[in-house]
Formats: sequence, structure tokens, C-alpha cells
Amino acid sequence: MPKPIFVLNGPNLNMLGVREPEIYGYETLADLRQRCEARAAVHGFEIVFRQSNKEGEIVDWLNEAATAAAAVVINPAAYGHTSIAFHDAIKGMSTPVVECHLSNPAARETFRHTSMVSLVAKAVIVGLGFKGYDLAIDAAVHLAATAAAPKA
Amino acid sequence: MPKPIFVLNGPNLNMLGVREPEIYGYETLADLRQRCEARAAVHGFEIVFRQSNKEGEIVDWLNEAATAAAAVVINPAAYGHTSIAFHDAIKGMSTPVVECHLSNPAARETFRHTSMVSLVAKAVIVGLGFKGYDLAIDAAVHLAATAAAPKA
Amino acid sequence: MPKPIFVLNGPNLNMLGVREPEIYGYETLADLRQRCEARAAVHGFEIVFRQSNKEGEIVDWLNEAATAAAAVVINPAAYGHTSIAFHDAIKGMSTPVVECHLSNPAARETFRHTSMVSLVAKAVIVGLGFKGYDLAIDAAVHLAATAAAPKA
Amino acid sequence: MPKPIFVLNGPNLNMLGVREPEIYGYETLADLRQRCEARAAVHGFEIVFRQSNKEGEIVDWLNEAATAAAAVVINPAAYGHTSIAFHDAIKGMSTPVVECHLSNPAARETFRHTSMVSLVAKAVIVGLGFKGYDLAIDAAVHLAATAAAPKA
Amino acid sequence: MPKPIFVLNGPNLNMLGVREPEIYGYETLADLRQRCEARAAVHGFEIVFRQSNKEGEIVDWLNEAATAAAAVVINPAAYGHTSIAFHDAIKGMSTPVVECHLSNPAARETFRHTSMVSLVAKAVIVGLGFKGYDLAIDAAVHLAATAAAPKA
Amino acid sequence: MPKPIFVLNGPNLNMLGVREPEIYGYETLADLRQRCEARAAVHGFEIVFRQSNKEGEIVDWLNEAATAAAAVVINPAAYGHTSIAFHDAIKGMSTPVVECHLSNPAARETFRHTSMVSLVAKAVIVGLGFKGYDLAIDAAVHLAATAAAPKA
Amino acid sequence: MPKPIFVLNGPNLNMLGVREPEIYGYETLADLRQRCEARAAVHGFEIVFRQSNKEGEIVDWLNEAATAAAAVVINPAAYGHTSIAFHDAIKGMSTPVVECHLSNPAARETFRHTSMVSLVAKAVIVGLGFKGYDLAIDAAVHLAATAAAPKA
Amino acid sequence: MPKPIFVLNGPNLNMLGVREPEIYGYETLADLRQRCEARAAVHGFEIVFRQSNKEGEIVDWLNEAATAAAAVVINPAAYGHTSIAFHDAIKGMSTPVVECHLSNPAARETFRHTSMVSLVAKAVIVGLGFKGYDLAIDAAVHLAATAAAPKA
Amino acid sequence: MPKPIFVLNGPNLNMLGVREPEIYGYETLADLRQRCEARAAVHGFEIVFRQSNKEGEIVDWLNEAATAAAAVVINPAAYGHTSIAFHDAIKGMSTPVVECHLSNPAARETFRHTSMVSLVAKAVIVGLGFKGYDLAIDAAVHLAATAAAPKA
Amino acid sequence: MPKPIFVLNGPNLNMLGVREPEIYGYETLADLRQRCEARAAVHGFEIVFRQSNKEGEIVDWLNEAATAAAAVVINPAAYGHTSIAFHDAIKGMSTPVVECHLSNPAARETFRHTSMVSLVAKAVIVGLGFKGYDLAIDAAVHLAATAAAPKA
Amino acid sequence: MPKPIFVLNGPNLNMLGVREPEIYGYETLADLRQRCEARAAVHGFEIVFRQSNKEGEIVDWLNEAATAAAAVVINPAAYGHTSIAFHDAIKGMSTPVVECHLSNPAARETFRHTSMVSLVAKAVIVGLGFKGYDLAIDAAVHLAATAAAPKA
Amino acid sequence: MPKPIFVLNGPNLNMLGVREPEIYGYETLADLRQRCEARAAVHGFEIVFRQSNKEGEIVDWLNEAATAAAAVVINPAAYGHTSIAFHDAIKGMSTPVVECHLSNPAARETFRHTSMVSLVAKAVIVGLGFKGYDLAIDAAVHLAATAAAPKA
Repeated sequence: MPKPIFVLNGPNLNMLGVREPEIYGYETLADLRQRCEARAAVHGFEIVFRQSNKEGEIVDWLNEAATAAAAVVINPAAYGHTSIAFHDAIKGMSTPVVECHLSNPAARETFRHTSMVSLVAKAVIVGLGFKGYDLAIDAAVHLAATAAAPKA
Repeated sequence: MPKPIFVLNGPNLNMLGVREPEIYGYETLADLRQRCEARAAVHGFEIVFRQSNKEGEIVDWLNEAATAAAAVVINPAAYGHTSIAFHDAIKGMSTPVVECHLSNPAARETFRHTSMVSLVAKAVIVGLGFKGYDLAIDAAVHLAATAAAPKA
Repeated sequence: MPKPIFVLNGPNLNMLGVREPEIYGYETLADLRQRCEARAAVHGFEIVFRQSNKEGEIVDWLNEAATAAAAVVINPAAYGHTSIAFHDAIKGMSTPVVECHLSNPAARETFRHTSMVSLVAKAVIVGLGFKGYDLAIDAAVHLAATAAAPKA
Repeated sequence: MPKPIFVLNGPNLNMLGVREPEIYGYETLADLRQRCEARAAVHGFEIVFRQSNKEGEIVDWLNEAATAAAAVVINPAAYGHTSIAFHDAIKGMSTPVVECHLSNPAARETFRHTSMVSLVAKAVIVGLGFKGYDLAIDAAVHLAATAAAPKA
Repeated sequence: MPKPIFVLNGPNLNMLGVREPEIYGYETLADLRQRCEARAAVHGFEIVFRQSNKEGEIVDWLNEAATAAAAVVINPAAYGHTSIAFHDAIKGMSTPVVECHLSNPAARETFRHTSMVSLVAKAVIVGLGFKGYDLAIDAAVHLAATAAAPKA
Repeated sequence: MPKPIFVLNGPNLNMLGVREPEIYGYETLADLRQRCEARAAVHGFEIVFRQSNKEGEIVDWLNEAATAAAAVVINPAAYGHTSIAFHDAIKGMSTPVVECHLSNPAARETFRHTSMVSLVAKAVIVGLGFKGYDLAIDAAVHLAATAAAPKA
Repeated sequence: MPKPIFVLNGPNLNMLGVREPEIYGYETLADLRQRCEARAAVHGFEIVFRQSNKEGEIVDWLNEAATAAAAVVINPAAYGHTSIAFHDAIKGMSTPVVECHLSNPAARETFRHTSMVSLVAKAVIVGLGFKGYDLAIDAAVHLAATAAAPKA
Repeated sequence: MPKPIFVLNGPNLNMLGVREPEIYGYETLADLRQRCEARAAVHGFEIVFRQSNKEGEIVDWLNEAATAAAAVVINPAAYGHTSIAFHDAIKGMSTPVVECHLSNPAARETFRHTSMVSLVAKAVIVGLGFKGYDLAIDAAVHLAATAAAPKA
Repeated sequence: MPKPIFVLNGPNLNMLGVREPEIYGYETLADLRQRCEARAAVHGFEIVFRQSNKEGEIVDWLNEAATAAAAVVINPAAYGHTSIAFHDAIKGMSTPVVECHLSNPAARETFRHTSMVSLVAKAVIVGLGFKGYDLAIDAAVHLAATAAAPKA
Repeated sequence: MPKPIFVLNGPNLNMLGVREPEIYGYETLADLRQRCEARAAVHGFEIVFRQSNKEGEIVDWLNEAATAAAAVVINPAAYGHTSIAFHDAIKGMSTPVVECHLSNPAARETFRHTSMVSLVAKAVIVGLGFKGYDLAIDAAVHLAATAAAPKA
Repeated sequence: MPKPIFVLNGPNLNMLGVREPEIYGYETLADLRQRCEARAAVHGFEIVFRQSNKEGEIVDWLNEAATAAAAVVINPAAYGHTSIAFHDAIKGMSTPVVECHLSNPAARETFRHTSMVSLVAKAVIVGLGFKGYDLAIDAAVHLAATAAAPKA
Repeated sequence: MPKPIFVLNGPNLNMLGVREPEIYGYETLADLRQRCEARAAVHGFEIVFRQSNKEGEIVDWLNEAATAAAAVVINPAAYGHTSIAFHDAIKGMSTPVVECHLSNPAARETFRHTSMVSLVAKAVIVGLGFKGYDLAIDAAVHLAATAAAPKA
């Protein structure tokens, strides 16, 4: 059995589908978990799916993933733009990391145009909503299979 | 028969696999075309695959795609960082556009950290080499199928 | 019984009145809580009064307030200047939010001159010490009573 | 009889309720004056209520207030963002000054994100429309009553 | 018995010696603790040695140190560059604080060239690896012994 | 006999203890020299202790130190913030260099927040007054003893 | 009879033709007024032609124009680059505004390259001397005739 | 017969009236050509009307215009903001150049607030749609008639 | 009789000696006028001494001085840092202008480190209190006597 | 026969000697070609001499030069300051490239002070007019002869 | 006999009157010395007049002046804009310092618009050529006579 | 006999070939001098070849060169990026100056991307090692022979 793929979600993603669903849709974080599990299963992987509003807890998980995960899909949400701690945690691990955002940050406010995570992630996929997680898992599987790709 | 997906490639991508292949690999732009054709075929699409070193010629193609394409995958390469003409051409079309880069620009020089194309593209996928084109075509098909998604 | 008003306090505010009281005064966070309770009672409201040094915990509370609070008074302290997570949490809720600071940040160091919270708060009240909480509660009650004010 | 509270209003506030009232509402500057008079009366104060489109005239009034006012509430409007003359006039007086804006400048264009007045005002209250003047008068009364508070 | 010296370590320092030891060395955080204990013992001090990936938890410890510690040695790691909460916690305590980094941040990426902690720390020691902790403890003892040094 | 440690001091340090000693203290540069000699002697080293107000003279000494010194302790004072000549001289030598400042530059004006020397020094120690020279000599001895440490 | 077109002129334009006419020409502000009257008459309009060195007085006139003018031609001169009060006055009126400068500001010092007025004017015409006023009046008439053009 | 007036149009202007005419209107580039021909005819001029998506082709035309045109009206569209090649071509010719934009760039994104063309154009006219071309031709004729106006 | 020297004073200088004289001194603007009159008399000049809080009024006076004054001494106070109108008025006159400030702006806040007036003044004298007016008048007389010095 | 040296010329250089020769001189691009041929012949090289106003065409030539040229002399003119496409084309080739400008860009406008080409060129020669091409060819021959110089 | 006034001159001032006198005038540094001696004599002072092209030598002189001079007039020339060493030397002395420039730096290139010396000088006098030294000596005498003026 | 060509070398160039010759090569400054003498001799010139680590000494030499040299080749090394004194010395002389660097500064750290010398040098040649001095001497001879070329 291969190591699982970690799918880590940052702050406020717990509110998916809960808040004003008539506007934002009724799909919740639980739905997203199921979607990710299904996609990973196609590739023969299990996933560890987590969400936290706490930067430090996600750093803990990234440190855990350094040895426990085949690859990481992370939607760092708000913390991605400023977290040097995420940056350092990813820089220090050889496990490939795919950054994923539901929307396209470049199409939003300028403070979302930089990402401390993108500087060290292997790949970045944005703007595709839940569908983006499918592709991010595909990418993560692809990168996990690639032999010791040197980090950019 | 649906409209094709345009796959547009910017400057210097004609040199793929030609220049120092012992270092950069032997896969060429022609190989990439075949790969894209195969991927699109799985979804029942044909592709229009082009490359140019000329910004204006790619603007021509984007204008053409506004009516002739189901979706666009564009690797704007160097022009993506500065081309307001690409930006305007994409902003003015309802056809969904997916931006794709072989490497991860955020991991390179700072002048590659901004993209005039990302500001108006629906989705962006970077850092996955040729594999990224597979995912970009998947994303383009997904977006083409989505009913009238509002532009960010 | 109406929903309560959340009064949320950020990092280091637990040190009020504890540290060098001969200089900063002997009024503590507990005193502030009592003052807020009294003020809210005048308007017929109860309050939920909390303090944390952890950004993520306050994000949790803001998410909770999205459904459980009539209005929010927040003194984000140090996190207000940088927290995009606070920003996103507030942006995503229709509950009105009043930002409050004991001192006037504009009269202090330049890194305190920007606030990620002010960008999305309905109102901001600064520079009045404990008295500012009275006014912030008045403002929160006023905004809670106003019908569906459109967000700026 | 105590000295009055000066309520000073900057450029374009004369247009309140006059221009397109079906959109912006029918309340005028005269209505605001009455509201302020009523609020001040509760605290036992009279007000001197003025408006001008001329930066220099408001500087004159601030200089007058240095000796004639118990406190000042100022809505500097457009001049607040650039007026070093307001800044100097306020810095040079011991009378407490409360800055007040109808809307929340931080939620508007970036050129409204700095205030030369905020740098020297004792307190700032924004985003509450006419209601904000009530709170600003409350704050002004509070500050006038506080013994010789040192300026930040 | 004097108050102990707090030695506080920020995010990702838990990974010392764990991750790829053949590259980064086999010395762990536990080894660092022992080294610090030995060094402090020479001066007749005990240490409180902690590590956390959570910014808020370290703020808690700094608040605790304000009364419980003779001096603080802090390696804020990633949080040092952005944490205004650390800054405020240190600014508000009279206990001397020595900032310490294993590497020399000035020789790394530009986002590591500023430190919110350095602005308020009494002393800064960087670039000496584990040896730097020895010197930081020497410095902390020296500062603790100096009578009421005024903060810069 | 090992090579000596160079202790180089930049502009205005000749004024130590000379100017207004009732304020700044009576310890002079000569006292500092003695202190450094004593500290180095503990480690079995002699020192070459110099001061100059001339940038170019200090460049001469750094060039000399490239072959004549076991290590260098340099307090570049004002020139540290702007001198690319110091930077180049240090970059071009394998002798380890420790930068030392009496005060903590980060706690002073912003033009002192950058250091051309810090970019290439192995270690930096600031904020400890004369005591900092003790620690800088300890660090220099440590680095001189470390086998061929790769430059950051 | 239609409402008149306001032609408003900013600081120092009173000096046209007065100062060193052998260099700058003998045409005065009075000549410019006649030219504007003639041009407007062709379109069947009268003009209100004014000049002031006082920012606030021009704000008064803009407020007046909100209801009294068919359109406004404004040469804000020096105030155009900094006046948020002009900006707000224009933003708040539905009367179309044409900005006009005798010279081309982009060809002059960089502090003339931004215009607070251009951000909200419907049209801008620069670089044509007195002739530019002819075209600005043509434009103003054109815009006044266009039904309720939405503001950019 | 006088030399003609060149009317040069930049990227994406070929899409006028073609793309979503129900939104942007049905007037095409061909309509614009006719309008310009008519306007020029009133002044006794013919026009050379061209459009290209290629920066270099427009540079060719500007070089041609240096000897073949009485004046140039150019809508550089996207290229105007970045093209130093346009800038140099215009700077090197004595033929007067009038820059023209359909919309007002200052009312759009900040990357449209600078123009390499405006730095060297004699006149600039923006914000008037097709009507702006009429005025630009009037201006071009005026400038062509003016004897050897010195360039700013 | 020669033309007089204009001595023009900007905003808040009317408060000299009036506000808190026990701190700022008892010398008033009237005293300053007498001092200037005495100094000018030594050189055989009369002065026109004025003060205003209104930027536009001072522009009026500068325009007047273009023909009526032998030289101008101006303390633009707060307006000096931002007034392009002052700049233009001075640029357009051949009468020499000496800028004078009571304090040294470079030793104060950064927003006082630029001066739109200094860019075009012939000379600048700062930091000498009332004494500086003596020297400014000496300078003005000197410049008035110098034949047609070319403007920098 | 060795490979030729490519001499590539950017936009507007076709106008050499054509436009206002009484001012700029009568030497044309054809004269420059002859000069370069003569200089290369001295070294035993032929040259391929081209000029284009089109960025993309020059990218084509650079790609061609990657295999067909012994060395490249390029005067990128206006495109040198912004063209990432030139940058990428040069970065990807091992053929040495010498950048050459007729004038000294550093002595001109600030937008000419950066060069995307200089970042990757082996050598840069500016300010010598046609003579500079002689030296650039000397340099190109020198670099072509140097064995496999590592790129900076 | 009072202490003398130091008149210190920075780099390139030795070239006064030597280089192209037909353009810059025939007055030399020796003439300037005589003028200063005469002016100081009127006040009963002697002067120490020196010039150097070496930053460090002038720092030496400033250190000397800290005890040996009644006041300092310094024309730091080029070094004034960057020299933190001058800044520190002046900051550390109670002797009053007057900065003097022959021309008005604000009217020249932007790199001359900041002065590290102005930040700590008591007074600044610029733009008056040799005459400015007269006034600077007057100012220096004035400041030397003023009792212990606190430094800004 | 013509005046000689001055070849002036800045800080750290004395270390050429001395420091780690196995890495940087064994060619020394003395070798470079011989090379320059030989090259100049071909043109019938002698050279004055000097090196200094002292900015002020090089300013002395530039001042000397103003009258004693036919032309100057200067490798300002580190001082080139910041020295306004070099800038002023060169600006004030009519002798042509060629700036030369062994490496290409644009390919190195950003603080090497600006040159105060390039702003006023006639020509700049970089990136060619010792060979660059040959070309710089060729250029210097060329410029010395050109009659009174106007400075850019």
C-alpha cells in the first residue's frame, strides 16, 4: 500500500456550503473530501484530508507529511500569501507539493497576487473550483511517480 | 462536431527538444502536439495547435479563437508577463482560457512573478512540464462544458 | 432574546492591567468584560467576550459569529495589520463587524497604518481606550438594527 | 457655560441630500446639524457647526478652535488625505480632536487609505453615516472631560 | 534560585536532525536543549526550553516570560519576519530578549531581511548554528545581570 | 603560533569615551582594545586591533586579513550600511568574518536596517555594547576552528 | 434655452498673456473666453467662464455645475494632480466633465503624470493650446447630447 | 494635394462591432474608417487607415509616416502602455502625432495609467468613443497647419 | 524707490506666539514683521508682509509679486510640501524667490522632506527660527541685485 | 569556413541616415553593414546582418543563431528594455552574445536604464556610435574563440 | 579668543575656478577662503578652512571640530547625499553645524534631493553661490552664541 | 607626445591573481598594466595606470585627469554603484571617460545594476575580463580623436 496523499485545507474552507448556500452553492467540505477520495482511489491512493484555521496546525501537518505522505495537495487559502512557515516546511521536504486554489487569486485583490507557497511548490493549479482538486490529485500522483525530480 | 480547443504556444517553445537535447530532453514541440491531440481525443475534441515567436500573431489567434474555439489553452511564455494585448484579447472573449506553463514561474526570477494573462484567465496550471498540458486540456474541456461561467 | 454581540480580542490584550499596572493602569481584561456587559445590557443585548493570542482561534470565532452573533466588535490587535484570514472570515459573513483599537494606530509605527480588517469592517473606532468599546457596542447595536446594509 | 464643541465639515458635504436624493437619501447638512445639536445638548454642550469647500477656511476654524472650543469633531472629507495644514493646526492645539467620516475610507480607493489628520487626531470613527456623528460627539465630550490626556 | 532563562523556538525547528540527517546533520532539537541546559548551568541558571509551530502559543510563552523569566532567548524562525504579535509581546515586557537564528538571514532571500523581533530585541546573534545558542545564553545572562537597561 | 584575529573598527569609534563621557561613559577605544586582547588570549589568540574613519583604509585591512588573519571581527559602523567595497573584500576571502555593532541597528533609523556586510559575513552579533566584542571573538575563534565551512 | 457650459480654469491661468508676452504670446484669459464663447455659440450654447487660484472656490463652482450646467470643461491646472476634492465633486455629479490642459502633462515633470480629475472625467484633451478648448467644447456638447452615458 | 493623415489602430481594434455586438454595439472598424474619411474630407485631407495586432508592423507604419504623412492619429491600444519602440519612432519624426483612445485609460486599471506614446505625442484625446477620432483628426489638421511647432 | 520685497507666510504661522507662549515663546507674527522691516531697511528696501491660511490667496500674491516685487521671501509652511500651484507661480516669474522655514524640515517627519517650492526657488534657508528671516532678506537683496541670474 | 557572426538590429534602426540627415548624419544602415563586414573580415569571419521592427522576428533570428552563428552582436534598441522573449532566447543558447547600443542608455531616460538583454549577454558595449559595432565584433570574435566560457 | 569656526569643503570643490573658468568663473577655493576669513572677522572669529576629496578625512575633521570648533560650516558636496559617517559624526557633537551648498540641490537630479547631513544639521543654506558662505558664517556665529540649543 | 591615457582601478582590484589563483587565475594587476601599456602603445599613447581602495584618492586622480589626460579608462569597481563624487568629477571634465568592468554587473546582484559613473561616462564596456581593457583603450583613443563630442 503506498503512502497516502495529504489534502490540506486552510482557513475559512470549513465554511464551504454552510454559509448562504443559496448563493455559494450547497457543496460542503465533506463533499469535497468525498470527491478527493474518489479521485485518489482511481489512482490507487488513499487520502488524508484535513482542514484548519490555524497556521501552526497546518505546519504540523506539513512536517508530518514530510515522512508520511506520497505527495501533498494544499489549499493554503489566506495563509498562502504570507506564511513563511509554510514556505519553510515545504522547502525542507522532498515530498512533492501541489498548491491549489478554488478561485484564481490573480483575478482578485493585489494582496492575493503573491504566494509564499508558490515559491516552493512543484505545481500550482487555480481557478477551477472543486474540479481543481481532481487535477491537483492527478498532478500529485504524477509527481509522486516521477523519480526524485529536482526542486526548482 | 464540437469546436476545437486551441492550444497556443508563445516564444521560444519551438526550441523544445531541439537545443541541447542531452540536457533538456529529446521531446519536441511536435511530440507535445501529439500528446495534446491524444488527450483531447479522449474528451472527443480536436485541437488547433500553434506556436509563434510573434506577440501580434498570437493576438490574431486569440481573436480567431473568440468565435472558432470551444476553449483555449495558452502557454504565453515570455509574453505572458508583459502583454496587455493578450490581456485585452482574452478579456474580450467569452471562450474560457486556461494558462499553462511548463515550469513554475513563481520559483524563477521576479520578473516572471506577474502575468498579464493570469489576471483574465479562468484557470492557471504551472510546474508540471508536458503533463501540465494534459491537465490544462482536461480543465479546458471542463470549462467549455460548464454553462456560461461568469468571468472573475 | 436576540443573538448576542461577540466582543473578540486579539493577542497580548490578556496582559491589560497585569503588566506594570503603575504605568498602564490597573484595569484588566476582566474589567473590560464587565464594562462591555453593562453597555450591551443597556441596549438589551448579551455579549460573548473572548480573548486569544492565536490567529486561528479567532478565525474559528468569526466563523461561529457568522451564524451565532447579532454583530461583532473586534479588537484584532497585532493580527489586524496582516491577517488575510480575518479579512476573509469577515468578508464572508453578513453579520456587521466593528473594528476597535484602544490606541490610534495611525499615530504609531507605519506597520500599524494598514489593517486587513478595516478593508471589510463596516465601521472602525480607535483611540478612545476602554471608552471606545462602549461606542463600538453602540455602533454594533445600531448596525444590527439597520436592515441589510449593503457591504462597502 | 462650557465652551462649545466645533463640528467642522470639509468639501462637498454641502451636497448631502441635495444631489440625487432618490439615490443618496433626503437628509441634508441642515439635518445633520440638528442631529448634532440634539446629541450635544444631551451632554450639556452647544455646537458650532460649519462646512466649507476651502482648505484654508477650515484651517482658520481649527486655529479658532484652539482657544474657543472644548473639543473638535472634524469630517475633513477629501482634504483629510493630503492636508498637512490641517495636520499642523491640530498638532499645535491641546483641544482634543475626533476625526469622523460617513463611509469607511479603508473600503474605498487606495488614495483614501492615508489621512494626515488621523496621524494627530485623538480618536477616529468611520463607516457609520450620520450615526457616526453621534458617537463622535460622545467621544469629544469624553475626551474634553478627561484631564490633560498626553497626545500620542 | 534565580528565575530561569526561556529558550523559545519557532516553526519547523522540531524537524532539526529528523529530516534527511545525512544532509543536515544528526543533531536534534533534543540535543540543542541539552546544549542550552549545559551552557546555562555554567552561569547558574536553569532554562525553560520549548518549541512550537503556532505563533499564538509562542505569544502565550512570551507573556508568561514577562514575569517568569530572567531573560529570553528566542529563535522566532519564520514568524520573526512578520509577527507583530511577537513584537508587541516583547515591547511590553522589561525582561531582556535575545534573538537568535541558526543561519544568517541577510545571506538568504530578501523576505528574511526584515525582522519584527529585531526591532525590539535587546540583542541579535545570527549565523553560528548551535554555537549561536551558547552565545545567546551568554548574552541573556549578561543582560539579566545588567541593572534595568533602558530599551532602545 | 596561530594567525591573529583582526578586530577592525569603522568611522567615529575613535570618539568612544572621549565625547561627553558623563553621558556615554568613560570607556574608550583603548579600553575596548584591552578587553579584546584579554578575551582573545583566553582562546590562545593575539589580535590586530585597528580603527579608521576611512572606508578605503579598512578595505586595505580586509585585503590584508585575507591572508594574514585567522578570522575577522568588524564593526563597520556607518560604512556597513552602504559599502559595496567592504562587501566585495569580504566576499573574496575565505577567512571567516563576524560583524559586530555596539547597538542594535534594527532599533534605530531605517537607513541602518540594511547592511552590505551582513550579506556576506558568516555571523552577526549586535546590541550588546562592549560585551558584544567578547562574544564576537568567541564566534570568530569558533569559526576559525571549524573546517572549511561553506559560505552562505 | 439650454443650460450653459461651464468653462472652469485653475491656478495661474490668470497670468496668460500678461507675463512676458514676448515669450509666451499676447493672448490673454480674456481672449480665451471670447474664443470659447464663439465656439459654444456655434453649437447653440452659452458659457460660464471662470478662473480662480483657490481650490475651494472651484469646488464651489463644480457643485454649482452639478445642477446648473449642461456640461463642464475644466482646466484644473496645478490642482488637477492632487485635488481629491475636485475628484469627489466630479464623481458626485451626472453632468459630463471634459478635462483640458494647454500643454501635454505627460511630456513634463513626473509629478504632472497623474491626475485626480482624469480618474473621473468623461474625456481628456491635452496638448493643443487654446485650440484644445475648441475641441473640449465640441466634446462637451457631444457628451451633453448623449443620453445618460454610464460613468466609467 | 496634401500628404494624407495616417490613422493607425493597434491590437484588438479589429474586433470592434464583431464580438457580442448586442453589448458593444454594431459599429465596426470599417464604420470607423468611413467616419474618419468623412471627417478628413471636410478639411481637404485623405487618410491612410490601418489596423494591426503586431507592434512591429505599426512601427513600420510610423517610420513610413515620418515622410509620407501630414500628421498621424494613433490609437495604440494595449501597446501604448509599454512600447518604447512606438516612443522612439514618434520621437524621431517631426510629423505631429495625436494619441487617441476610445475609453479613458485613467478610469481603468492602473497598468493603463502610463503611456509611452503620451510622453512624445503632441496631443492626447481620450474617452469619447468614435467621436474622439473626429476630434483627433481636427487636432491633427490643426497641428499640421501650425508651422514647425517645437516638440515638448 | 525700489520695488518692495514680499515676505509671504503660509498656514498656521498666524499662531506664532499666541498659542501656549510659555512653551513656544512670546514672539508673534507682528514681531516677525517688525524684524523683517528693520532688516530690509538696512538694505534700503521696504517689505510687503502677509500671512494666509489659504493656498489660493498666496498664489494670488505670488502672481502679484511677479510684477510688483523686487524679490520674494516665502515661508510656505505646510503648503510647500505639496503645492504645485506655488511651484507653477514661482516657475513663471523672473523675480527671485527665497524659501525659508523656521525649523529644519529634514529633521522632522518624512512628509516634510520634499518641497515643491524648493524645486524652483533660487535659494533655501532653514532651521534658524526668526534669525532665518534676516538671512533670507539678505539673500533676497543679494539676488535682486544680481543681474538676471539664469534659473537652475 | 567558420560559422558567421550574426549582427541583429532592432526597431527604428532602419531610419539611420534617412531621417533628417542634416542633423543625425548621412550614414545609413547600409553603411553600418559595410563597416561590420569589413571589421569581421579582418578576423576571418562573415556576418549575417539584419534589421527588423518586429520583436518576434528577432526572436526567430536568435533561435536560428543558436545553431547557425559563431557569435551574436545585437543592438536590441527599444525592445532590449522590456523583451523577456529576447532574454529567454539568449539564455537558452550557448553562442556568446554581445549587446551593443549606439548611445549610452544610462545617460538617457530612466526607462532605458534596465535591459532584459544585459541580464544574459556575455558583454555589453555602449555609447560609441558606429565605432561600437567594431568593438562589439572584436568582442564577439574573442568570445567565440574562448573555450566554453561558463555563463554568468 | 573664541574657538574658530571650521569651514569644511567636500569633494571636487578644489576644482573651483580651475576648470574651464571662462564658463564657471575665475573665483577659486582660495578666493572663497579669503571671503570666509573676512566674513568671520567681522564677527570676531577666525576660521579653519579645509577641503578634501576623502570622506574619511572629513570625518576626522568633524571629530576634531567636536572639541576644537565654535561652530561648523560644511559643504559636504557629493558625500552629503550618502554619508552616514558624516551623519554620525555630526549627531554625536554638540557644536552647531550649518550645511551649505553653492547650488540648490532640489533643482538638480533626484539623487541630490536627500542629504544625510541635513537630517542632523541645525541649519541649511543653499543656492546662493559664494554668497551662501557669508550667510552660513552669519548663521554659525548666531548658533554658537545661542545657549545650548536642543538638537532637532 | 600626446597626453597619456589614465587607466584607473577601484577597490579590491589589487587582489587580482593574488587571492586563490587556482580559482581566479594567476594574472595580476601588474599583468593587466602591461597589457594596457602594450595596447596603448599600438595607438601611440602612454598610460598612467593606478589602483586604489580609497574613493577620495580616485577623485583626486579624476581631477588630475581633467587637465593631464587625453582620455580616461576607469574600472570603478564597487564605488561605481554609489559614488556621486566620481559622478561629479567626471561630469565636470571634458576629457572623455570610458567605464570598464571585468564582469557584467547586470548579471550579478541588483545593487550592481545601477552605476553613478555610467550616467556621465561617454562609453561603457563590460563582461570581457582583461580583454575589455583592450577595447576600452581602443574606445578611449577613438573618443580622444573625435572633436569635442557633445556630452549626452
